[in-house]
Amino acid sequence: MRHDHLSRTFAALSDPTRRAMLARLSLGEANVSELARPFLGEMTLPAVTKHLKVLEKAGLVTKTRDAQWRPCRLNGAPLKEVSDWMETYRTFWEESLDRLEEYLATVTMKKTTGGRKHGRAK
Amino acid sequence: MRHDHLSRTFAALSDPTRRAMLARLSLGEANVSELARPFLGEMTLPAVTKHLKVLEKAGLVTKTRDAQWRPCRLNGAPLKEVSDWMETYRTFWEESLDRLEEYLATVTMKKTTGGRKHGRAK
Repeated sequence: MRHDHLSRTFAALSDPTRRAMLARLSLGEANVSELARPFLGEMTLPAVTKHLKVLEKAGLVTKTRDAQWRPCRLNGAPLKEVSDWMETYRTFWEESLDRLEEYLATVTMKKTTGGRKHGRAK
Repeated sequence: MRHDHLSRTFAALSDPTRRAMLARLSLGEANVSELARPFLGEMTLPAVTKHLKVLEKAGLVTKTRDAQWRPCRLNGAPLKEVSDWMETYRTFWEESLDRLEEYLATVTMKKTTGGRKHGRAK
Protein backbone atom coordinates (compact mmCIF):
# COMPACT_ATOMS: atom_id res chain seq x y z
CA MET A 1 0.00 0.00 0.00
CA ARG A 2 1.30 3.37 -1.00
CA HIS A 3 0.46 4.88 2.40
CA ASP A 4 2.42 2.24 4.23
CA HIS A 5 5.41 2.72 2.02
CA LEU A 6 5.43 6.47 2.59
CA SER A 7 4.99 5.89 6.34
CA ARG A 8 7.95 3.53 6.32
CA THR A 9 10.09 6.10 4.52
CA PHE A 10 9.15 8.89 6.96
CA ALA A 11 9.78 6.57 9.92
CA ALA A 12 13.19 5.61 8.51
CA LEU A 13 14.07 9.30 8.22
CA SER A 14 12.96 10.10 11.77
CA ASP A 15 16.29 9.22 13.33
CA PRO A 16 19.50 11.30 13.27
CA THR A 17 21.76 8.21 13.05
CA ARG A 18 19.92 6.96 10.00
CA ARG A 19 20.03 10.41 8.39
CA ALA A 20 23.77 10.55 9.12
CA MET A 21 24.15 7.19 7.36
CA LEU A 22 22.33 8.56 4.33
CA ALA A 23 24.56 11.65 4.43
CA ARG A 24 27.63 9.35 4.40
CA LEU A 25 26.21 7.34 1.49
CA SER A 26 25.42 10.50 -0.42
CA LEU A 27 29.23 10.86 -0.72
CA GLY A 28 29.58 7.39 -2.25
CA GLU A 29 29.15 3.67 -1.59
CA ALA A 30 30.38 2.22 1.70
CA ASN A 31 30.36 -1.21 3.29
CA VAL A 32 28.74 -1.90 6.63
CA SER A 33 31.88 -1.51 8.74
CA GLU A 34 32.74 1.79 7.05
CA LEU A 35 29.19 2.99 7.66
CA ALA A 36 29.24 1.83 11.27
CA ARG A 37 32.64 3.29 12.24
CA PRO A 38 31.54 6.86 13.17
CA PHE A 39 28.80 5.52 15.49
CA LEU A 40 30.64 2.76 17.34
CA GLY A 41 31.71 5.11 20.12
CA GLU A 42 28.09 5.70 21.08
CA MET A 43 26.38 2.44 20.08
CA THR A 44 27.05 -1.23 19.43
CA LEU A 45 27.52 -2.78 16.00
CA PRO A 46 24.16 -4.65 16.26
CA ALA A 47 22.44 -1.30 16.99
CA VAL A 48 24.08 0.22 13.93
CA THR A 49 23.13 -2.71 11.67
CA LYS A 50 19.57 -2.48 12.99
CA HIS A 51 19.42 1.15 11.83
CA LEU A 52 20.82 0.07 8.48
CA LYS A 53 18.13 -2.60 8.14
CA VAL A 54 15.43 0.06 8.71
CA LEU A 55 16.93 2.06 5.83
CA GLU A 56 17.07 -1.06 3.65
CA LYS A 57 13.46 -1.99 4.40
CA ALA A 58 12.39 1.51 3.41
CA GLY A 59 14.30 1.05 0.15
CA LEU A 60 16.58 4.01 0.94
CA VAL A 61 19.68 1.83 0.99
CA THR A 62 20.42 -1.10 -1.27
CA LYS A 63 23.30 -3.56 -1.11
CA THR A 64 25.04 -4.07 -4.41
CA ARG A 65 25.75 -7.50 -5.87
CA ASP A 66 29.52 -7.38 -5.41
CA ALA A 67 29.86 -10.75 -3.65
CA GLN A 68 32.98 -9.96 -1.62
CA TRP A 69 32.50 -6.40 -0.62
CA ARG A 70 28.67 -5.88 -0.71
CA PRO A 71 28.80 -2.11 -0.48
CA CYS A 72 25.71 -0.12 0.46
CA ARG A 73 24.32 2.49 -1.87
CA LEU A 74 21.86 5.31 -1.33
CA ASN A 75 18.70 4.80 -3.33
CA GLY A 76 16.82 8.06 -3.81
CA ALA A 77 13.60 6.61 -5.24
CA PRO A 78 11.60 6.62 -1.96
CA LEU A 79 12.54 10.29 -1.52
CA LYS A 80 10.73 11.07 -4.75
CA GLU A 81 7.53 9.91 -3.08
CA VAL A 82 8.26 12.15 -0.06
CA SER A 83 8.93 15.04 -2.42
CA ASP A 84 5.61 14.47 -4.22
CA TRP A 85 3.80 14.42 -0.88
CA MET A 86 5.62 17.59 0.21
CA GLU A 87 4.63 19.39 -2.98
CA THR A 88 0.95 19.43 -1.91
CA TYR A 89 1.95 21.49 1.12
CA ARG A 90 4.41 23.82 -0.58
CA THR A 91 2.06 26.81 -0.31
CA PHE A 92 1.90 26.25 3.46
CA TRP A 93 5.59 26.38 4.14
CA GLU A 94 6.05 29.21 1.68
CA GLU A 95 3.24 31.09 3.45
CA SER A 96 4.83 30.47 6.83
CA LEU A 97 8.06 31.98 5.49
CA ASP A 98 6.14 34.98 4.21
CA ARG A 99 4.60 35.40 7.66
CA LEU A 100 8.04 35.18 9.25
CA GLU A 101 9.31 37.85 6.88
CA GLU A 102 6.30 40.05 7.68
CA TYR A 103 6.93 39.58 11.38
CA LEU A 104 10.60 40.44 11.05
CA ALA A 105 9.68 43.50 8.99
CA THR A 106 7.29 44.61 11.76
CA VAL A 107 9.95 44.11 14.42
CA THR A 108 12.49 46.07 12.38
CA MET A 109 9.89 48.79 11.81
CA LYS A 110 9.22 49.06 15.56
CA LYS A 111 12.92 49.30 16.29
CA THR A 112 13.45 52.06 13.76
CA THR A 113 10.46 54.17 14.84
CA GLY A 114 10.01 56.17 18.05
CA GLY A 115 12.08 59.25 17.14
CA ARG A 116 15.43 57.51 16.82
CA LYS A 117 17.05 55.64 14.04
CA HIS A 118 19.35 52.78 14.82
CA GLY A 119 21.85 51.17 12.54
CA ARG A 120 21.33 47.47 11.86
CA ALA A 121 23.06 45.37 14.51
CA LYS A 122 25.85 43.20 13.22
CA MET B 1 18.44 20.59 18.81
CA ARG B 2 17.84 20.87 15.11
CA HIS B 3 18.27 17.12 14.60
CA ASP B 4 15.64 16.30 17.19
CA HIS B 5 13.17 18.72 15.71
CA LEU B 6 13.56 17.25 12.25
CA SER B 7 13.26 13.73 13.70
CA ARG B 8 10.05 14.73 15.44
CA THR B 9 8.63 16.12 12.21
CA PHE B 10 9.51 12.97 10.24
CA ALA B 11 8.05 10.78 13.01
CA ALA B 12 4.85 12.84 13.00
CA LEU B 13 4.54 12.34 9.24
CA SER B 14 5.12 8.59 9.45
CA ASP B 15 1.47 7.76 10.04
CA PRO B 16 -1.36 7.76 7.47
CA THR B 17 -3.96 9.02 9.99
CA ARG B 18 -1.80 12.02 10.85
CA ARG B 19 -1.15 12.73 7.17
CA ALA B 20 -4.90 12.51 6.54
CA MET B 21 -5.44 15.08 9.31
CA LEU B 22 -2.93 17.40 7.64
CA ALA B 23 -4.70 16.87 4.33
CA ARG B 24 -7.99 17.88 5.98
CA LEU B 25 -6.38 20.96 7.54
CA SER B 26 -4.84 21.92 4.21
CA LEU B 27 -8.45 22.65 3.13
CA GLY B 28 -9.01 24.99 6.08
CA GLU B 29 -9.21 25.21 9.87
CA ALA B 30 -11.19 22.58 11.78
CA ASN B 31 -11.91 21.88 15.41
CA VAL B 32 -11.02 18.60 17.09
CA SER B 33 -14.40 16.92 16.63
CA GLU B 34 -14.49 17.87 12.94
CA LEU B 35 -10.97 16.50 12.54
CA ALA B 36 -11.80 13.33 14.44
CA ARG B 37 -15.08 12.51 12.65
CA PRO B 38 -13.68 10.58 9.63
CA PHE B 39 -11.60 8.31 11.89
CA LEU B 40 -14.10 7.46 14.61
CA GLY B 41 -15.29 4.36 12.77
CA GLU B 42 -11.87 2.80 13.04
CA MET B 43 -10.45 4.32 16.24
CA THR B 44 -11.49 5.94 19.51
CA LEU B 45 -11.56 9.68 20.17
CA PRO B 46 -8.61 9.41 22.61
CA ALA B 47 -6.61 7.66 19.87
CA VAL B 48 -7.45 10.46 17.45
CA THR B 49 -6.54 13.21 19.94
CA LYS B 50 -3.26 11.40 20.63
CA HIS B 51 -2.43 11.61 16.91
CA LEU B 52 -3.35 15.28 16.98
CA LYS B 53 -1.04 15.87 19.94
CA VAL B 54 1.85 14.32 17.98
CA LEU B 55 1.18 16.80 15.17
CA GLU B 56 0.99 19.68 17.66
CA LYS B 57 4.25 18.68 19.37
CA ALA B 58 5.95 18.62 15.97
CA GLY B 59 4.60 22.13 15.35
CA LEU B 60 2.65 20.96 12.29
CA VAL B 61 -0.68 21.88 13.85
CA THR B 62 -1.41 24.88 16.05
CA LYS B 63 -4.58 25.73 17.93
CA THR B 64 -5.76 29.26 17.40
CA ARG B 65 -6.67 31.60 20.25
CA ASP B 66 -10.40 31.64 19.58
CA ALA B 67 -11.48 30.81 23.16
CA GLN B 68 -14.76 29.10 22.31
CA TRP B 69 -14.02 27.19 19.19
CA ARG B 70 -10.21 26.67 19.31
CA PRO B 71 -9.87 25.51 15.73
CA CYS B 72 -6.74 23.69 14.57
CA ARG B 73 -4.64 25.10 11.79
CA LEU B 74 -1.93 23.56 9.62
CA ASN B 75 1.45 25.17 10.22
CA GLY B 76 3.80 24.58 7.32
CA ALA B 77 7.00 25.85 8.97
CA PRO B 78 8.37 22.41 10.02
CA LEU B 79 7.87 21.22 6.43
CA LYS B 80 10.32 23.89 5.29
CA GLU B 81 12.98 22.12 7.35
CA VAL B 82 12.05 18.79 5.72
CA SER B 83 12.21 20.44 2.31
CA ASP B 84 15.69 21.84 3.05
CA TRP B 85 16.85 18.40 4.15
CA MET B 86 15.33 16.83 1.02
CA GLU B 87 17.11 19.33 -1.22
CA THR B 88 20.51 17.77 -0.38
CA TYR B 89 19.30 14.51 -1.88
CA ARG B 90 17.53 15.92 -4.92
CA THR B 91 20.21 14.61 -7.30
CA PHE B 92 19.62 11.10 -5.93
CA TRP B 93 15.92 10.93 -6.58
CA GLU B 94 16.33 12.67 -9.90
CA GLU B 95 19.05 10.15 -10.78
CA SER B 96 16.81 7.28 -9.76
CA LEU B 97 14.15 8.65 -12.11
CA ASP B 98 16.73 8.92 -14.89
CA ARG B 99 17.70 5.29 -14.27
CA LEU B 100 14.04 4.29 -14.43
CA GLU B 101 13.68 6.13 -17.74
CA GLU B 102 16.83 4.48 -19.08
CA TYR B 103 15.51 1.10 -18.00
CA LEU B 104 12.14 1.73 -19.66
CA ALA B 105 13.93 2.90 -22.81
CA THR B 106 15.94 -0.35 -22.85
CA VAL B 107 12.81 -2.43 -22.40
CA THR B 108 11.07 -0.54 -25.21
CA MET B 109 14.18 -0.95 -27.38
CA LYS B 110 14.20 -4.73 -26.83
CA LYS B 111 10.54 -4.92 -27.72
CA THR B 112 11.00 -2.97 -30.93
CA THR B 113 14.11 -4.81 -32.18
CA GLY B 114 14.24 -8.26 -33.79
CA GLY B 115 13.60 -7.33 -37.42
CA ARG B 116 10.30 -5.55 -36.91
CA LYS B 117 9.38 -1.97 -36.30
CA HIS B 118 6.41 -1.16 -34.13
CA GLY B 119 4.64 2.13 -33.70
CA ARG B 120 4.71 3.63 -30.21
CA ALA B 121 1.86 2.28 -28.14
CA LYS B 122 -0.67 4.86 -27.03
